[in-house]
Amino acid sequence: MSIPATPHSAVGIDFGGTTVKIGLVADGCIIEKRPPLDTQAYAGAPPLINAMVREVEAVRAAHPELPAIALGVGMPGLVDSDSGIVHSLTNVRGWKEVALRDILQQRTGLPSALENDAKSMSYAEWRHGAAKGKRNVVCITLGTGVGGGLILDGRLYRGSNFGAGEVGQMSVDPGGNAGHYGNLGALEKYVGNAQIVERAMEMYAAGLQGAPEGEMSPFTLQKAAQRGDPVAIALWKEIGGRIGFMLSNIVWLLNPDTIVIGGGVAKAGEWIFGPVRSEIKSRCSPVFWQKLEIVPAKLGSDAGLIGAATLGLDQACA
Amino acid sequence: MSIPATPHSAVGIDFGGTTVKIGLVADGCIIEKRPPLDTQAYAGAPPLINAMVREVEAVRAAHPELPAIALGVGMPGLVDSDSGIVHSLTNVRGWKEVALRDILQQRTGLPSALENDAKSMSYAEWRHGAAKGKRNVVCITLGTGVGGGLILDGRLYRGSNFGAGEVGQMSVDPGGNAGHYGNLGALEKYVGNAQIVERAMEMYAAGLQGAPEGEMSPFTLQKAAQRGDPVAIALWKEIGGRIGFMLSNIVWLLNPDTIVIGGGVAKAGEWIFGPVRSEIKSRCSPVFWQKLEIVPAKLGSDAGLIGAATLGLDQACA
Repeated sequence: MSIPATPHSAVGIDFGGTTVKIGLVADGCIIEKRPPLDTQAYAGAPPLINAMVREVEAVRAAHPELPAIALGVGMPGLVDSDSGIVHSLTNVRGWKEVALRDILQQRTGLPSALENDAKSMSYAEWRHGAAKGKRNVVCITLGTGVGGGLILDGRLYRGSNFGAGEVGQMSVDPGGNAGHYGNLGALEKYVGNAQIVERAMEMYAAGLQGAPEGEMSPFTLQKAAQRGDPVAIALWKEIGGRIGFMLSNIVWLLNPDTIVIGGGVAKAGEWIFGPVRSEIKSRCSPVFWQKLEIVPAKLGSDAGLIGAATLGLDQACA
Repeated sequence: MSIPATPHSAVGIDFGGTTVKIGLVADGCIIEKRPPLDTQAYAGAPPLINAMVREVEAVRAAHPELPAIALGVGMPGLVDSDSGIVHSLTNVRGWKEVALRDILQQRTGLPSALENDAKSMSYAEWRHGAAKGKRNVVCITLGTGVGGGLILDGRLYRGSNFGAGEVGQMSVDPGGNAGHYGNLGALEKYVGNAQIVERAMEMYAAGLQGAPEGEMSPFTLQKAAQRGDPVAIALWKEIGGRIGFMLSNIVWLLNPDTIVIGGGVAKAGEWIFGPVRSEIKSRCSPVFWQKLEIVPAKLGSDAGLIGAATLGLDQACA
């Protein structure tokens, strides 16, 4: 089926460990979002799927002027987008070998797609966000952990077992901090939210400058840098340097035209983008950085939902 | 044009800083190679191109039973395979903005392709060598320097400025040895031929074990390891470990199904493949290495020529 000329939409589902967000997406914009479902409040897959289907039908019914023609779901972890089966979920009870794509397809009548959440977000930024129209895009998302996605030669690249884009697991120090898989030097063990706060405490404890009052978070540390706090400025330089180091290796390998950086930490703006750019510039030859754009993500926390819907739509219309 | 059913061939040219090798390739095999041309013996591009065309015609004339239907050239450095223009060559006089592809196409009447040499080699290993039939392939070539090439989703991946695959420039140590571009920790400054010999000398000087007699080279150090020399064994473990560390980062990023390791150093066999495998295994989650094949290159020093010819053929028949 090709993209219809008449107005249409797609349903996006952003399935997280805490909430499931469901909305209607048209041309990369969210038309309506339903109140999120509480992922942990359902005893296993069948009741949560029932609730998801109910919300999908509710949002479709509310917009007869924009008929949905596809559906997409973004999920955490390793997602088998070929089979559409959820093999397991780390933090959600009762999800084992659930043929989620086919179940949703059957119950909603919409051609459906299943994708990893970081890949959905990357897809959204490429199709409708900060990397629109670009050909070779590296997306990274900074948060509790660090995720990523790749668009290569104008297509989402998934890897051989749907695992590509694990930038948070790449090592910035062969003998450094152990990652989730025992992998020494994993980037996310240096630039994840908790690690940023921990490092800030170390730096404040070692320095002359007192720590800011109240609970410390990447957000308060951004504010501190904006106020000119030298420890916070040095902190963001170090964090940006780590990210820039890892990205410089990716740049040598993939020679991308665009790097999109998203997630809460990316809101530190130039405090983090500055060191990232100068690290890449100092570590790569000019051919690799002269035309390289390093930009903040545009779609924020809606990226997963928009990307899932867009993937569903693009696959249905391929 | 689609691939003809009748017997046919393609001409491959492997253009190096020392010699230019020209041969006829059919179905991934070299039918005949001409005596190599001495790259440095020609005063600039026009006379060398004349000699190349002469050899192309000679090898075609010798095999009327296998008419050539395409031509491909592999060249060192950054190669603009879209325009077919050689912008400059580091070690060869008189090559500035030479429209080599179009010149060869016009003078031989064969549809022609121009490609980087490491990418040509990778292409050959994928189409006819160690990674035949695989989908996501990382090739690295160990020698004086370290080069690489990527096949992703069953296609040669070139990057935005034809620069992708520079694995030798990727850093294995943020503050380590400076690479060719001042890039600290560049892999090739640890595992290039000269660096291997230098490191061996250090290790022999520091240890109790005497160095082997005669001139030291990666080849003699392989022989030493085979004889059970503990210093040589430790050396290869360290070299393999460095390569494995860098590859583990690539594995997290690209989730390939196959890694092909070629070049002289790869002949150290299990002395180097063993540490590479165990490093990847210790640094990546099982999903990433359980089905991953790590294999030696098959086509040896002919890979560049075979790959260039095959690229020419595939592009002409696309």
